[in-house]
Amino acid sequence: MADAQPFRRLCLVGIGLIASSIARAAREHGLAETIVCASPDPAHRAEALALGLADEAFASNAEAVRGADLVILCTPVGVMGAVAREISGDLDEGAILSDVGSVKQGVIDAVAPHLPDHVRFVPAHPIAGTENSGPAAGFASLFRGRWLVITPNGLSDDQSVARLTAFWTAMGAEVEVMDAGHHDQVLAITSHIPHLIAYNIVGTADDLETVTKSEVIKFSAAGFRDFTRIAASDPTMWRDVFLNNREAVLEMLARFSEDLTALQRAIRWGDGETLFQLFTRTRAIRRAIIDAGQDSAAPNFGRDVDGAGDD
Amino acid sequence: MADAQPFRRLCLVGIGLIASSIARAAREHGLAETIVCASPDPAHRAEALALGLADEAFASNAEAVRGADLVILCTPVGVMGAVAREISGDLDEGAILSDVGSVKQGVIDAVAPHLPDHVRFVPAHPIAGTENSGPAAGFASLFRGRWLVITPNGLSDDQSVARLTAFWTAMGAEVEVMDAGHHDQVLAITSHIPHLIAYNIVGTADDLETVTKSEVIKFSAAGFRDFTRIAASDPTMWRDVFLNNREAVLEMLARFSEDLTALQRAIRWGDGETLFQLFTRTRAIRRAIIDAGQDSAAPNFGRDVDGAGDD
Ligand SMILES: NC(=O)c1ccc[n+]([C@@H]2O[C@H](COP(=O)([O-])OP(=O)(O)OC[C@H]3O[C@@H](n4cnc5c(N)ncnc54)[C@H](OP(=O)(O)O)[C@@H]3O)[C@@H](O)[C@H]2O)c1
Ligand SMILES: NC(=O)c1ccc[n+]([C@@H]2O[C@H](COP(=O)([O-])OP(=O)(O)OC[C@H]3O[C@@H](n4cnc5c(N)ncnc54)[C@H](OP(=O)(O)O)[C@@H]3O)[C@@H](O)[C@H]2O)c1
Repeated sequence: MADAQPFRRLCLVGIGLIASSIARAAREHGLAETIVCASPDPAHRAEALALGLADEAFASNAEAVRGADLVILCTPVGVMGAVAREISGDLDEGAILSDVGSVKQGVIDAVAPHLPDHVRFVPAHPIAGTENSGPAAGFASLFRGRWLVITPNGLSDDQSVARLTAFWTAMGAEVEVMDAGHHDQVLAITSHIPHLIAYNIVGTADDLETVTKSEVIKFSAAGFRDFTRIAASDPTMWRDVFLNNREAVLEMLARFSEDLTALQRAIRWGDGETLFQLFTRTRAIRRAIIDAGQDSAAPNFGRDVDGAGDD
Repeated sequence: MADAQPFRRLCLVGIGLIASSIARAAREHGLAETIVCASPDPAHRAEALALGLADEAFASNAEAVRGADLVILCTPVGVMGAVAREISGDLDEGAILSDVGSVKQGVIDAVAPHLPDHVRFVPAHPIAGTENSGPAAGFASLFRGRWLVITPNGLSDDQSVARLTAFWTAMGAEVEVMDAGHHDQVLAITSHIPHLIAYNIVGTADDLETVTKSEVIKFSAAGFRDFTRIAASDPTMWRDVFLNNREAVLEMLARFSEDLTALQRAIRWGDGETLFQLFTRTRAIRRAIIDAGQDSAAPNFGRDVDGAGDD
């Protein structure tokens, strides 16, 4: 798949972490002759040009997409519908429109109604990222060895799915095709609920009266710090994720809370056997994730090879 | 404090992650003339000797402590009372008894009643560790730049607290003296609740019918994998922590659940402002932890510098 046919003109709407990583990877692998981007923020447009991420940077999304044969929406999920409305009249005949949103059905529902018939819409989601954002946060290898989920729908066709697959494969990703609704359930448990409970525990710790903030910070190496990383992710992006994947998130959250209540009861009644059984079962998943190449086996993620860690 | 007066004979009861790290660090810094250990497992005793962690390894805890001027209990918290009973008749006049348990009041309550008057008891807890266990998991730098909490009580005296402080300081730790009850509250939020919810979400994911285990593993880089690390920690150790810090854990858990219910309601009613405000507030704590030197600022903990990460 390294023989991806290059696009003539790639337009990235938004130029944050994901868009700037795509720009770098697409340049590195020669996947687009010209790369342009759009951003409402003049400082970010200047930064994108200075970093060589784009050949041209537009304030207007509609102007940015003109003449592009691949347009990728790289904004927070909550504005994608509005962006689609803005650009719909300016999309080229035969252009492929894609996105990188962390939620898929909500994006399809918001975007599809605005699209003209002559555009192919191929929604996608790279399962890769960091807690940082902005044009300077991206790097070309972000997608290497990670999954990219494509969720085709009534506005996709096989040829455009194949071209987008080749594009992402060339950047090092492995592509999986999935139903949008199923994607949203899978991501609810592997991403959205983890982020929600990480944000939540950091908030709880911040509010305590019996334990000071400086104590929480000082003794965070006992486990807490692992949660603060994802709780430092972009607030706009994550607000939009929860507002746009409500049903799946609420369903998984109900399961999580039910299970937590059972643990609470086990602690209250001194039921060590229930605790021990759960704590044993969970180790297998960690091993499987490491075996699948999706995490480092080094203790403490290898973050301080000659340093410390958990409680 | 690098001028710690060496102990004549250091006895480590248990020879897992923490004990083997103490053994390595104590040797490196010349903090004990002789190091001995006790373990019920013949394979672990042999391993301890082969790795040079101890000069002698005993099956009997009582035999192991004879002649030691510093004895450190490095077993799971739940057996420390029984171990204290076993060794009480064999502790040397003037010996210092300490421990490394993750819970302090419960350990004091279990251990103190068994101790003869001629022994000083100085409970302690190093806020450092990894998800691994056993004699081979330790390393000399584990405690460097991390906190060690001492919780003196009726059986401690200033001189033994000072000697134990010098011992840990020489291994690179910063020592903080705290009331045992307060320690247990601080650790409930910085360590015990994070571990509990990590174990819980991994269990929830493992039980789903709509999302397969292989999907959870495949797409774990979206956030979930961060939780699996601490959910791979030793089941016995963690069962004992929850059984022995019940009150503080249940109190903090109630706060966590209350806050999570508020988030759930915000999601259900589309209250983006509440979500956005929390997600903004939590970033400050991450920054403070990095500024305090308690975590790496590298994206994804720096675990895959040219690789991937979060959703
Ligand atoms: N971060 C992750 O880990 C990750 C992983 C996979 C997928 N995603 C998805 O990728 C998308 C982007 O995330 P990111 O992390 O790259 O976020 P980011 O770094 O915050 O970038 C978002 C970009 O969108 C731009 N933008 C916002 N509103 C816009 C509008 N109306 N028109 C044009 N541009 C607009 C922003 O412009 P200015 O900043 O210049 O105002 C910014 O350049 C989101 O949908 C997210 O769900 C994120
Ligand atoms: N892991 C951490 O991150 C961490 C951090 C700070 C404090 N702590 C605390 O440190 C203590 C030890 O934890 P660890 O991580 O070092 O655990 P570990 O690697 O599992 O080691 C526990 C050791 O205790 C021994 N042991 C168990 N029952 C015993 C008994 N009745 N008599 C003598 N030895 C016995 C075990 O012997 P065998 O395996 O040979 O049977 C093993 O050597 C716990 O109290 C824990 O709360 C842990």
